[in-house]
Amino acid sequence: MQVLNNGFVKLLEHMGGDDAVIRNARRCWRSEAKTEDADRKLLRHLIKAGHKTPFEAMVFTFDVKTPLFVARQWFRHRMGSFNEESLRYCVAMRDYYIPEGLEDELLLKWKSKNEEAFDFYDLLVNEHRVVKEQARSILPIGIYTNFLWTVNGSSLMNFLHLRLDKQAQYEIRVYAQAVLELVRDAAPICFSEFEREVLKLGE
Amino acid sequence: MQVLNNGFVKLLEHMGGDDAVIRNARRCWRSEAKTEDADRKLLRHLIKAGHKTPFEAMVFTFDVKTPLFVARQWFRHRMGSFNEESLRYCVAMRDYYIPEGLEDELLLKWKSKNEEAFDFYDLLVNEHRVVKEQARSILPIGIYTNFLWTVNGSSLMNFLHLRLDKQAQYEIRVYAQAVLELVRDAAPICFSEFEREVLKLGE
Amino acid sequence: MQVLNNGFVKLLEHMGGDDAVIRNARRCWRSEAKTEDADRKLLRHLIKAGHKTPFEAMVFTFDVKTPLFVARQWFRHRMGSFNEESLRYCVAMRDYYIPEGLEDELLLKWKSKNEEAFDFYDLLVNEHRVVKEQARSILPIGIYTNFLWTVNGSSLMNFLHLRLDKQAQYEIRVYAQAVLELVRDAAPICFSEFEREVLKLGE
Amino acid sequence: MQVLNNGFVKLLEHMGGDDAVIRNARRCWRSEAKTEDADRKLLRHLIKAGHKTPFEAMVFTFDVKTPLFVARQWFRHRMGSFNEESLRYCVAMRDYYIPEGLEDELLLKWKSKNEEAFDFYDLLVNEHRVVKEQARSILPIGIYTNFLWTVNGSSLMNFLHLRLDKQAQYEIRVYAQAVLELVRDAAPICFSEFEREVLKLGE
Repeated sequence: MQVLNNGFVKLLEHMGGDDAVIRNARRCWRSEAKTEDADRKLLRHLIKAGHKTPFEAMVFTFDVKTPLFVARQWFRHRMGSFNEESLRYCVAMRDYYIPEGLEDELLLKWKSKNEEAFDFYDLLVNEHRVVKEQARSILPIGIYTNFLWTVNGSSLMNFLHLRLDKQAQYEIRVYAQAVLELVRDAAPICFSEFEREVLKLGE
Repeated sequence: MQVLNNGFVKLLEHMGGDDAVIRNARRCWRSEAKTEDADRKLLRHLIKAGHKTPFEAMVFTFDVKTPLFVARQWFRHRMGSFNEESLRYCVAMRDYYIPEGLEDELLLKWKSKNEEAFDFYDLLVNEHRVVKEQARSILPIGIYTNFLWTVNGSSLMNFLHLRLDKQAQYEIRVYAQAVLELVRDAAPICFSEFEREVLKLGE
Repeated sequence: MQVLNNGFVKLLEHMGGDDAVIRNARRCWRSEAKTEDADRKLLRHLIKAGHKTPFEAMVFTFDVKTPLFVARQWFRHRMGSFNEESLRYCVAMRDYYIPEGLEDELLLKWKSKNEEAFDFYDLLVNEHRVVKEQARSILPIGIYTNFLWTVNGSSLMNFLHLRLDKQAQYEIRVYAQAVLELVRDAAPICFSEFEREVLKLGE
Repeated sequence: MQVLNNGFVKLLEHMGGDDAVIRNARRCWRSEAKTEDADRKLLRHLIKAGHKTPFEAMVFTFDVKTPLFVARQWFRHRMGSFNEESLRYCVAMRDYYIPEGLEDELLLKWKSKNEEAFDFYDLLVNEHRVVKEQARSILPIGIYTNFLWTVNGSSLMNFLHLRLDKQAQYEIRVYAQAVLELVRDAAPICFSEFEREVLKLGE
């Protein structure tokens, strides 16, 4: 699923869905899944009351490509794991964020400033034998980076809650929206109740 | 898989295995799985150097039944999630730990003391209308409890490292051993390297 | 501060208060503490919007003595650290929970059942050389245990939110209330806003 | 304490030291601090065996200024809290990393490339009314950022272990070294044992 000028989010793997969350929640009462209506009410209650552990029975792994400043916001969500390509070991690719809606002249300048930074990086690494981990200092914060994210359902909902908020930066909001599209099918009851109760959609 | 006189461990679900860990580890270098030998060496290095995030791409959910004092030790492992049947809402079942090797006379006393505690509990709940959450005060610490445990590969290895240690209590060590048997097939390279490097088996 | 028939909560140490939280929150805007009114509004906003990291600049260590079933609920709060006396190494003390309001006859039975359990424990440990870690199986869940708890301000607020709730068990609610009394002085603005916005007191 | 060309680390506050760790560790046995020699042996054992919770009774808050790529490595340490100035709200300051040992000509180019990036940033923000949160895309990864870090003793030791390693990048190693200098006095026994057992210094 493409996001921004050159990024993406893919759902690689997941474990558990509505069934797993209901199974875990009902363990408390030594009971099993009941009618869909009763199960839905239970999930709604858990979301509203802030009971998180049952949602931790769902786990997702995403492959994500974002501008570096978006990745920095993303990595602030500590309950999850990240594996990112490292510019200590990999040569940086000439791949950077371009905002929509720049006027033509400004767009040209934006591109040429980014290209010049990569030119200088190439010079440092190839001609002057500066190590990659230092040479990257000169690259712009808008370069794309690529990482794997494993996160459980509870922490994912927290991410969506904060990053779909109007106060969140546009560039991460579009990623959060893409993540939400990707997980809906995996746990339709959980995420529809989450959208109603937390995101307050459909009001 | 039965453990102790009346407990068990079952592996209900899992996500990811050797492939997922290798994929996550190699993301750092923007590379892919290589020969089995190179992959194995990489995993060994990660284990020895304490790099944990790639192993967090593996996740397991277990159904576990243990004496309550074993559950208390288990729940100390904070990186994981637990959903346990609650004696606030469920009536306690007459199901308690009996150590092996008690002499006949002592075994009889052990059983009768446990039975008396349950008799008093029943009296409190049924006759005196004491709420279950208070009445449980009188039940012995050796009663069985049942919980679901979701844990990633890194935290699981930490659990095994500490709970398979000779210093760990016998009653949790046999559970840790059962857990290890159950996960070996899910990620044979990871766990064989873990056994060699951390548990120091096969030396 | 005494709680229940034989428990307590003491605040041993703390670091940071309103000043530290405001300093951390304002770092985001590269600004400093302002008027008390502006600072209070900021803290209120952080609490309502779920921004947790500034409150993590406050840390508290408590010494707590509770019935074991209360400790089990307490230890479910994973963001914090616990050091508890261990009945693997310490001999259990004859010290158990007695609920208020039991009728005389029931109270006598409650006590005698607890005493009998301790008598059997002493017999197991002293006469039969059963190891303490096994012998404790026979002790009641209502025995008192003693632990140290280190927790940051954000996790503490989460604990108070869930454990002061009407749905929480009475026996942990009185501890949560005692904890709240103890921390109020350490960060009066934070906790008065927390009480207003989260606990909805004073409405 | 100055680090690199323009960074620093300051210890702002701390709670607990050797005494607190020993108190927490000895709670397990219901014992108190003993001779310095016995306490030291205990701490050594805890470090070697990987028992972490007693060290969580020590907490530190640092004020840190680093190049952004160093901050990114630092923030990977999830057990801790960070509050960083945000370039969504603050105008970026003309303050960037300059490695030591660049030849004169290259040094001039390094500076001019950084200066040009800031010139373009100023133009975007001041002339073209591009929002700061987007305009920062063009700034180099080597700009300095400033954050507060609250971390407990166990997580701090993990940070030091990984970031003082020879495999760690030079630019974060010098910060880790500065952090170690700053905490030594707060808990001299803990950190001397840590250096001996984990860092293998003095062998």
